[in-house]
Amino acid sequence: MTGGTERMWADDAASRMLGMRLVEQSAGHAVVSMVVRDDMLNGYGICHGGLVAALADSAFALACNSHGVVTVASGFDVSFLEPGRPGDELVAAAREVSSRGRSGIYDVTVRRAADHVVLAEFRGRSRALR
Amino acid sequence: MTGGTERMWADDAASRMLGMRLVEQSAGHAVVSMVVRDDMLNGYGICHGGLVAALADSAFALACNSHGVVTVASGFDVSFLEPGRPGDELVAAAREVSSRGRSGIYDVTVRRAADHVVLAEFRGRSRALR
Amino acid sequence: MTGGTERMWADDAASRMLGMRLVEQSAGHAVVSMVVRDDMLNGYGICHGGLVAALADSAFALACNSHGVVTVASGFDVSFLEPGRPGDELVAAAREVSSRGRSGIYDVTVRRAADHVVLAEFRGRSRALR
Amino acid sequence: MTGGTERMWADDAASRMLGMRLVEQSAGHAVVSMVVRDDMLNGYGICHGGLVAALADSAFALACNSHGVVTVASGFDVSFLEPGRPGDELVAAAREVSSRGRSGIYDVTVRRAADHVVLAEFRGRSRALR
Repeated sequence: MTGGTERMWADDAASRMLGMRLVEQSAGHAVVSMVVRDDMLNGYGICHGGLVAALADSAFALACNSHGVVTVASGFDVSFLEPGRPGDELVAAAREVSSRGRSGIYDVTVRRAADHVVLAEFRGRSRALR
Repeated sequence: MTGGTERMWADDAASRMLGMRLVEQSAGHAVVSMVVRDDMLNGYGICHGGLVAALADSAFALACNSHGVVTVASGFDVSFLEPGRPGDELVAAAREVSSRGRSGIYDVTVRRAADHVVLAEFRGRSRALR
Repeated sequence: MTGGTERMWADDAASRMLGMRLVEQSAGHAVVSMVVRDDMLNGYGICHGGLVAALADSAFALACNSHGVVTVASGFDVSFLEPGRPGDELVAAAREVSSRGRSGIYDVTVRRAADHVVLAEFRGRSRALR
Repeated sequence: MTGGTERMWADDAASRMLGMRLVEQSAGHAVVSMVVRDDMLNGYGICHGGLVAALADSAFALACNSHGVVTVASGFDVSFLEPGRPGDELVAAAREVSSRGRSGIYDVTVRRAADHVVLAEFRGRSRALR
């Protein structure tokens, strides 16, 4: 892992509570997976959109902190294309798109592991702290 | 509760797992609260942004489904203004902003209950099913 | 006008080129109108979405600069609900939603003057310079 | 050009008014350029953000209509990284990211031609009509 994110990830209780697993990470890049559990379903029996976003947000955090500077999310946009079903393994791959000064844009694509179908497209806005 | 959302909310395992509580709901409107637990913190010791978004998303779902038509989120945008701290009670208030045909826009403001400071501004995009 | 925005508006050649008119402005608030001309139509004969966004962006700029600090847009999101037709007068009303430190969120609703139907909902993200 | 977009582009009076030039187009892809004129500057002497967005929106329209089905923008998000200066040639390159049913996500990067610096990252949401 890069940029001192080992400790950030080790301390990330929320990602652990949601069963997330770090698949890989390099500078400006990270892949995180999560299996949709029954306690992650919303009232329509599909994965709660906020938890799909949380998975993408964790991948985003690992990617944008990979440069060795403490960096926080100022916000993000997510579009949902397909629902996550119970038992699905979701894989979120984050990549740096652009940066300027202390601001950065990172895109995260969330796919279903079984068939690589895209479930969500997430775009994060980061801000490096001094 | 309106629009048949009682059952949707009763079946929402994810919101229950996160300890969310329905405060009030009416047509085009919903308020949901959540206390930031230790297992909701990210690697920097503040509430994971995805879980703040999940709270707002649950309020959004209750508001956009309040008209009696099954309605799903096609996406949302969220901006983070202040972090949530362990033990903070967060209150998400959702309101319908505009709609046209089967598409709607809902805004959700997430505040800290103790002092009403705004933690996040969320804008959801909904799509009613036939 | 407030915050020294008289000069900013007087120097705004783009808004003038597009025939925009300042209707009113106060602290954290601005209203700007524009009539859809034939040279503002896209290939489907409706007002180009970028120009609807430009109208909202001008109202946003007047609102977020009304506090006397030079403030720029770091970005915005816009959703289109109804098309603008040739000859329609569009009215964009901007209001401050939240702010924290040097960051702010402003919402702009664009309506057709004739019947107040909402054409677009715009959310701007601002950043005050030092 | 593909998908019957020749006529759409020929009829696009707004893009013509703004001096836009089609550089290339193929299925799910389009590149459009525009030179920042003095009448495109805002009150701070830089290219009006709405016009940078309009350029990206035109590239998005050409890309999302390239599949032969009339497709409209339901909205977009744009982040501004660097300002456009008078005389700068801006180049917007649009590419399809994901699609599902009648919905699509297209990303557009706007660069300064002279040095390829990224000025803006735009993400469009499309909806194909029946």
